Amino acid sequence: MSPIFSLAARSGDARRGTLRLAHGTVETPTFMPVGTAATVKGLTPDELRSAHSQIVLANTYHLWLRPGKDLLVEAGGLHRFMAWDGPILTDSGGFQVFSLQGRRKLDEDGVTFKSHIDGSMHRFTPESVIAFEEALGVDIAMVLDVCVKLPATREEIAESVRLTTAWARRSAAARARDATAVFAIVQGGLDRELRERSTREIVALDFPGYAIGGLSVGETREEMYAAARYCAAMLPENKPRYLMGVGTARDIVMAVDCGIDMFDCVYPTRCGRNGRAMTHAGEFTIRNAAYTHDFTPLDPACDCYVCTTYTRAYISHLFRANEMLGPRLLSYHNVYLLNDLMRGARAAIEADRWAAYRDETLAATTRD
Amino acid sequence: MSPIFSLAARSGDARRGTLRLAHGTVETPTFMPVGTAATVKGLTPDELRSAHSQIVLANTYHLWLRPGKDLLVEAGGLHRFMAWDGPILTDSGGFQVFSLQGRRKLDEDGVTFKSHIDGSMHRFTPESVIAFEEALGVDIAMVLDVCVKLPATREEIAESVRLTTAWARRSAAARARDATAVFAIVQGGLDRELRERSTREIVALDFPGYAIGGLSVGETREEMYAAARYCAAMLPENKPRYLMGVGTARDIVMAVDCGIDMFDCVYPTRCGRNGRAMTHAGEFTIRNAAYTHDFTPLDPACDCYVCTTYTRAYISHLFRANEMLGPRLLSYHNVYLLNDLMRGARAAIEADRWAAYRDETLAATTRD
Repeated sequence: MSPIFSLAARSGDARRGTLRLAHGTVETPTFMPVGTAATVKGLTPDELRSAHSQIVLANTYHLWLRPGKDLLVEAGGLHRFMAWDGPILTDSGGFQVFSLQGRRKLDEDGVTFKSHIDGSMHRFTPESVIAFEEALGVDIAMVLDVCVKLPATREEIAESVRLTTAWARRSAAARARDATAVFAIVQGGLDRELRERSTREIVALDFPGYAIGGLSVGETREEMYAAARYCAAMLPENKPRYLMGVGTARDIVMAVDCGIDMFDCVYPTRCGRNGRAMTHAGEFTIRNAAYTHDFTPLDPACDCYVCTTYTRAYISHLFRANEMLGPRLLSYHNVYLLNDLMRGARAAIEADRWAAYRDETLAATTRD
Repeated sequence: MSPIFSLAARSGDARRGTLRLAHGTVETPTFMPVGTAATVKGLTPDELRSAHSQIVLANTYHLWLRPGKDLLVEAGGLHRFMAWDGPILTDSGGFQVFSLQGRRKLDEDGVTFKSHIDGSMHRFTPESVIAFEEALGVDIAMVLDVCVKLPATREEIAESVRLTTAWARRSAAARARDATAVFAIVQGGLDRELRERSTREIVALDFPGYAIGGLSVGETREEMYAAARYCAAMLPENKPRYLMGVGTARDIVMAVDCGIDMFDCVYPTRCGRNGRAMTHAGEFTIRNAAYTHDFTPLDPACDCYVCTTYTRAYISHLFRANEMLGPRLLSYHNVYLLNDLMRGARAAIEADRWAAYRDETLAATTRD
């Protein structure tokens, strides 16, 4: 596999890189908004571009069930289906399937599960998942991994590490499409020895990129940061590092600080739908009475379409009146904000002033 | 009052005119999308512009209750609040209030009603409604009228005509703002004599524009067209004519044929939210199985953003997955379509080929 990542600068452990993918170049560190069902909820591809999103995540589990592989292939692939011509990363569905308590059965070869939509039975194997992701034509395909719900016994975590490595090896062997880069996933819970074992095993398989999985699943923030830092330090310098399911503005800043390059989370769009505004000065709930007569922008420090066009009073009114323009505008702004934070991070790393940027950002983003 | 309307052409009874308002010029015939709560559901002002909307309707009843006059004045008026700098027409709230069966009490001076939001008591008089609309800074303010639910006795309709005229006179006297044009409303149900009486009384008061109210409330299409044609023929040539609450593509074409210049309806956006696509070839329900694998545009004859970007299969998927992008895209297209139909109507009237355009449009818009 030809190298797809180049590191341009470092500042502390924070990294500034470039990721070259089939559908374009991604400057890192980067946040990936989540388009679960082939749509980042409420936003068009044009808006994702104008919000400076460089790459979008989509969920294998959801797309497998609906609309399904045949339709996506018939559509000419996921890019054409959803009219997004930039890079796409698909997760492997592992996280979703292993969340289906009592509706999935794991064996050495794969995992069988029941659809949450219609109860139909489906089966993921490392090979079937890679084939699915390649058929969709995505730029980055994540391998099928085995996730354990924390807390778990050491034996359970060790078994998930063993199977995750075995499946990663099978995933690499199953690769058939050059334009899709397959990234492997490190597991190991919060156990240092198991994290190390998983990382060393996965790295030995020489993937073009690595993800840290099994975090942001209920542990404390400090535990998450510690595990991410520990794993990142063992990952090769010249490969991109992706922390799955993160997150809030503060979590992303801390993850960049750990040496991570890529992040994804439903957080900004879920907050947007729930009336939670993310700003350079922290978060607030737009329905609060305080904002009813507030004719300032959502975030005075933001230059996005929403902040230059509407007031807090108007957006607060939209949420009170259950108008769908409210979730839409707030989702757009929140995605823009995280991308803006990443732009700032990239500039700060280039200028070797990451620590100052980190501290300023963490100090500013208090919560109300 | 200076004349705000000029008639440029006629073809049969269909009229091609220009309406000069404080926030811009409106070419007629024109369709006005409905922005009940200071937002055309799901669409931004930029999108309304790109969909060729020239003027937006907002509802006095809803805005009176939420966010209320004080906040709208504090915001700098309705235009600034909702970030739409084009013309706005507000209805008077009469239609909504008289729909509140058992929760409103009519007297000679006005009508008292209970809010559907919080049960609080409110009162509309002709003067308080005009004052509200002028405070919002709208371009066209409708007078408070008395609506009767059909079927009604002749006495009930006659009484509504009497009071509507008396209230129109009081509304004219209450006018205090030059930049807001006040339009009066003709009532009279389906009774020819009462329609004639109402029209003559209202026209004698010399308003800059006239609306035909009390239609599109449950009568047959043929009854509606007959009443609209009958009223339109009695309205002055040099004033704009507005048929309230219409409607579908076919109804609007028929109303233009009756000599009407302006229309409003929630139809295109409500259809958009419910998955009903309006096209040059009629309507269809996008969730139908037939569209799951249909990779053609929503309307092959449409050049809007949605039709040039997405397929029926994708939009059908969005509706199946309950993704809010679906209602948004379909609402945009439906509004664009009605505006496009109006553009075609204006061109046809200018070229004196209205009858052919009407017949072609009616023949093409069959329903599935």
